[in-house]
Amino acid sequence: MSKNLTKRSEDYSKWYNELVVKADLAENSGVRGCMVIKPYGYAIWEKMQAELDRMFKETGHSNAYFPLFVPKSMFEAEEKNAEGFAKECAIVTHYRLKNDPDNKGKLMVDPNAKLEEELIVRPTSEAIIWSTYKNWIQSYRDLPLLINQWANVVRWEMRTRLFLRTAEFLWQEGHTAHATKAEAIEESVKMMNVYAEFAENFMAIPVVKGVKTESERFAGAVETYCIEALMQDGKALQAGTSHFLGQNFAKAFDVKFATSEGKQEHVWGTSWGVSTRLMGALVMTHSDDNGLVLPPNLAPIQVVIVPIYKSDEQLDAITTEVDKLVSALRKLKISVKFDNRTTHKPGFKFNEYELKGVPVRIAIGPNDLENGTFEVARRDTLTKEVVAKEGIEIYIQNLLETIQNSMFANALEYRNSHITEVNSFEEFKELLDSKAGFFAAHWDGTPETEEKIKELTKATIRCIPLDRVEEAGVCMFSGKPSIGRVLFAKAY
Amino acid sequence: MSKNLTKRSEDYSKWYNELVVKADLAENSGVRGCMVIKPYGYAIWEKMQAELDRMFKETGHSNAYFPLFVPKSMFEAEEKNAEGFAKECAIVTHYRLKNDPDNKGKLMVDPNAKLEEELIVRPTSEAIIWSTYKNWIQSYRDLPLLINQWANVVRWEMRTRLFLRTAEFLWQEGHTAHATKAEAIEESVKMMNVYAEFAENFMAIPVVKGVKTESERFAGAVETYCIEALMQDGKALQAGTSHFLGQNFAKAFDVKFATSEGKQEHVWGTSWGVSTRLMGALVMTHSDDNGLVLPPNLAPIQVVIVPIYKSDEQLDAITTEVDKLVSALRKLKISVKFDNRTTHKPGFKFNEYELKGVPVRIAIGPNDLENGTFEVARRDTLTKEVVAKEGIEIYIQNLLETIQNSMFANALEYRNSHITEVNSFEEFKELLDSKAGFFAAHWDGTPETEEKIKELTKATIRCIPLDRVEEAGVCMFSGKPSIGRVLFAKAY
Repeated sequence: MSKNLTKRSEDYSKWYNELVVKADLAENSGVRGCMVIKPYGYAIWEKMQAELDRMFKETGHSNAYFPLFVPKSMFEAEEKNAEGFAKECAIVTHYRLKNDPDNKGKLMVDPNAKLEEELIVRPTSEAIIWSTYKNWIQSYRDLPLLINQWANVVRWEMRTRLFLRTAEFLWQEGHTAHATKAEAIEESVKMMNVYAEFAENFMAIPVVKGVKTESERFAGAVETYCIEALMQDGKALQAGTSHFLGQNFAKAFDVKFATSEGKQEHVWGTSWGVSTRLMGALVMTHSDDNGLVLPPNLAPIQVVIVPIYKSDEQLDAITTEVDKLVSALRKLKISVKFDNRTTHKPGFKFNEYELKGVPVRIAIGPNDLENGTFEVARRDTLTKEVVAKEGIEIYIQNLLETIQNSMFANALEYRNSHITEVNSFEEFKELLDSKAGFFAAHWDGTPETEEKIKELTKATIRCIPLDRVEEAGVCMFSGKPSIGRVLFAKAY
Repeated sequence: MSKNLTKRSEDYSKWYNELVVKADLAENSGVRGCMVIKPYGYAIWEKMQAELDRMFKETGHSNAYFPLFVPKSMFEAEEKNAEGFAKECAIVTHYRLKNDPDNKGKLMVDPNAKLEEELIVRPTSEAIIWSTYKNWIQSYRDLPLLINQWANVVRWEMRTRLFLRTAEFLWQEGHTAHATKAEAIEESVKMMNVYAEFAENFMAIPVVKGVKTESERFAGAVETYCIEALMQDGKALQAGTSHFLGQNFAKAFDVKFATSEGKQEHVWGTSWGVSTRLMGALVMTHSDDNGLVLPPNLAPIQVVIVPIYKSDEQLDAITTEVDKLVSALRKLKISVKFDNRTTHKPGFKFNEYELKGVPVRIAIGPNDLENGTFEVARRDTLTKEVVAKEGIEIYIQNLLETIQNSMFANALEYRNSHITEVNSFEEFKELLDSKAGFFAAHWDGTPETEEKIKELTKATIRCIPLDRVEEAGVCMFSGKPSIGRVLFAKAY
C-alpha cells in the first residue's frame, strides 16, 4: 500500500489529519463536527479505558451512569459553570417528527411536540450529578462519595479537528464529594497524579503537572490541576484536568451533610476528566513521516508476523515455525497477529503495519527457516535484527519494554530541550517564532497581563508548574514583581 | 437495615420498583424518563458488558463508535425505519443559550442559533452507520464488515419504568454487512444464539428462540430473530433481538460492492442489540420478597464475610482467619468482600447483603473460631450450613457453580410449567387471567387476527419458536388453517 503521507516538516497539521484517517483511527462523519472512531482507533481507546478504569478502581472509585440530558433550570443553577458552557451546547426542544405534508416521504419537527423545558445535551455532568448527590448524601457516613462515569459529551465547537476538538467526544468524568476541604484538594491532586502516571507509563508522554491560572480554570472550579504535554511541533496540549470545586456545586444544588457533631455543612467537591483527545496527543507525540508509532503498552497489535515465501511448501514450513512462536508469545500475554493473507505481498504488509504503528514486526523467509532465525524490526527506530528462534519470545518481551522506555525517553528529551527560559517580552516573541515549545517566564499574576500576551502572541499560560522554584523576579511583560516562572506556549 | 419491601404476591410491579431502588441498582433522575444507574447496578451491567464483549470479539466483531446525532435527512432515508422511530425521538434544534434579558441569572435558547438541519438523537444507529459504510465498502474484499458499538440511545417513551423502558438507555448494537443473503441470515442467527447463550449461562435465564411476526418486527428489517424470557409474574420479556435487514439499508444509503466477478451489487445487512433492559429481566426472573437474588456469574460481590464478635480480641482472631480465606478465594478468582465495619451490627449486614443478592454469605463467630468452622449461607435457597475451614475455598467454588446451575434449573422449571397449549379462544382468554405465562396456540398467520387478539386480550405473539413442530391446525381465533403453534403472552 502506498502511504502518500504529507511530511511533518512540510505541513504538520496536514500530516496529522491525513495520518488519523489513513491509519484507520477516525474520520469525519456526515454530522457536523462529529467523528467516527474506526475499529483500529477504538481498539487503542479501549486499551486506554481499561488501564484508566483499573487505576480509578484501585483508588477507590466506582462507576455509575447519569442522564445525557440536563434540564435548562438545572443547567443554569451553578452560574459560572452555566455561563462557561452556554455558548456552545446542543439543545433538545422537541420530541417528535411527523410527515411533512408539503414533501412526500420527508419528515418535519412536529410543532405540537415542544418540550415544556428545553434539555441541554451534557457538555459535562456536574449539574445533573450534583442534583442527584443531594439525595445520596445526608451524613458524614455517606462521604467520601467517589464516582466515575464513562460517557459521551457534546460541546458545539465551531472549528473541529479529529480527536483534538470535536462536537461530540468520549471521556470519563470523575465526580467526588468530601467532608472537608483538605480531603477534596487531596483527591484533586491524587487524580492529577493518576493521569500523569497513565500518560507517562502507558502513553509514553512526559507531562508537566501544574495549576491553571484563573482565566484558564474550569468554569465553576476553585482550582484546576492539569497535566500538560508538548507535541512534536512545539505546541502544548492539555492532556487531563482535575478540578477542586470548593463548595460551589454543593451550594448551587444545596448538598449538605450532618457532621459527626451533628452540624449541617455543605460538602466539598472535585471533578476530573480525560477524553478521546488523548488519542490526538498519542499520535502527535510519537508518530513520524512513515505513520503511527504506538507505545507497546497501548498497541492493539504488539507484534505482527509476516511470512515471505515463493511456494505453498515454504508457507507450510513457515507456518509451522510461526505457530510455535505465536503460542509462546501469547503465553507471555503479548498480542500477536500472523498476517498470512495470500492476497497481499510482504512489501504491502510491511507498509501497512508501519503506517499503523505496530511496535514489532517479525518476518520469516526461506533463509530464516534454514538458519533457525527470524528478522525482527522495530517500528520506533526502523531498525532490523536477525534473531535466533530459541528463546526469541523472551527477546521480544524485553524488546517491547525497551521500546516503551525508549519512546518515553525520546519524548522526554524532546520536551526538556523545548523548555526555554525567557526574561524579556522581545526575547519571548522572537523565540516563539523560531523555536516553539514551553517558555518559562516571570508573570505578574494578573489576568490583564495574561490576556494582553495572548492577544499579541497567541501564546497562553499552560500552567503554573507544581514543582517550580519560588524566586523573586519581574514580569517579562509588565515589569511588575513575580514570585516564580510559569509556562507559556501556543496550544492545541 | 429494614427492607420494608412489598411482597411479590401483593403487588408485583410495586415490588419491582421498590427493589430496584432499595438494592441500589437505579433510580429516577430529575430528567423525565431518564434513570441514574447507581454504582451497584452499574457493576452488574459492567459484568454483562465484559462477557458480551468477549463473546462478540470471539465471533470476529470489532468495536467502533459512531455519532450520537443523526441529521434529519439521513434519518428519513430508510422510510420504514424512520417511520418506526419518528414518533418518539429527541430533536436538537439549537446550539446556544444566551442570557434571558427578562430573567436575571436565567438562560434562554438563542433564537439566532438555530441549526440549518435538525439533529435526531439516535434511537438506533442504522442510518448513521450505513451512511458511513457507503465509504468503507467498495469490494467483496471489504466484506464481511463486523462491527459493534456500545452506546446510549434515546427513545421518547411516554410511560417509563426503571431499566424496562427508559427514555435514555445503554446498549450495544452490532451492525454487519455481507456479500450474500445466506451469510447475513447466518450472522443474524449466530448473534441470536450468542444472546441465548449469554442469557442462559450468565443470567441463568432460559429463553425461547424464535422469529417475530411482521407486526412485531424491527422497523426496516426483513426478519427479526429474538430471545424471549418469562418473568415470575407470567409476563414475557423480549431479552434481545437480531435483525436480518436484507438490502433495505444498503439500498437506502446506496451501499454497493464489486463482486469477485466485478459486478456491482447491494450488500446484505444485519443489526442486533441488547440493552440495560436485561437488568430488569435479571431482577424479575430470580429475586424474591427478601430482595435481589443474583447469579454468581454476574454478581459484583460473589461472597461476603461478616464477623460476629463481642470484643476487639475476638475481632482480631476472626480477622486472622478471614484474611486467609479471602486470599484463598481470590486465588480462585472469586470476588469476596470482608465487611468489618464496626458501625453496623451483623443483623443489619445480613439484611443488606440479602437485599443486594450476594450469592454466598459467610459468617464467623467465637464458636466457629473454636471449632475451626465457618457458617455458609446461600442467598438463593436461604439455607445455612456449618463448614470446616480446611478446603472451604473449594467448597465455596463448587457452591457458586451449584447456585448458578440451580437458579437456571428453577427458572427453567418455572418457564416450562408456564407454557400452556390452548386450542380455543375461550380457553385462551380464561387461562390468560388465571394462569399467565406463554400460550402455544395455532394462528392463521395474518396481522389482522394478531391485531384483534391483541385488542381483546392485550396478549401479543411473542415469537414463532424456531424449534416448533410443523403441524396442521386451525387458528384459535379465526378457525382458518395454521401450520404450527406460536407463543402468545402479555409482555413487558
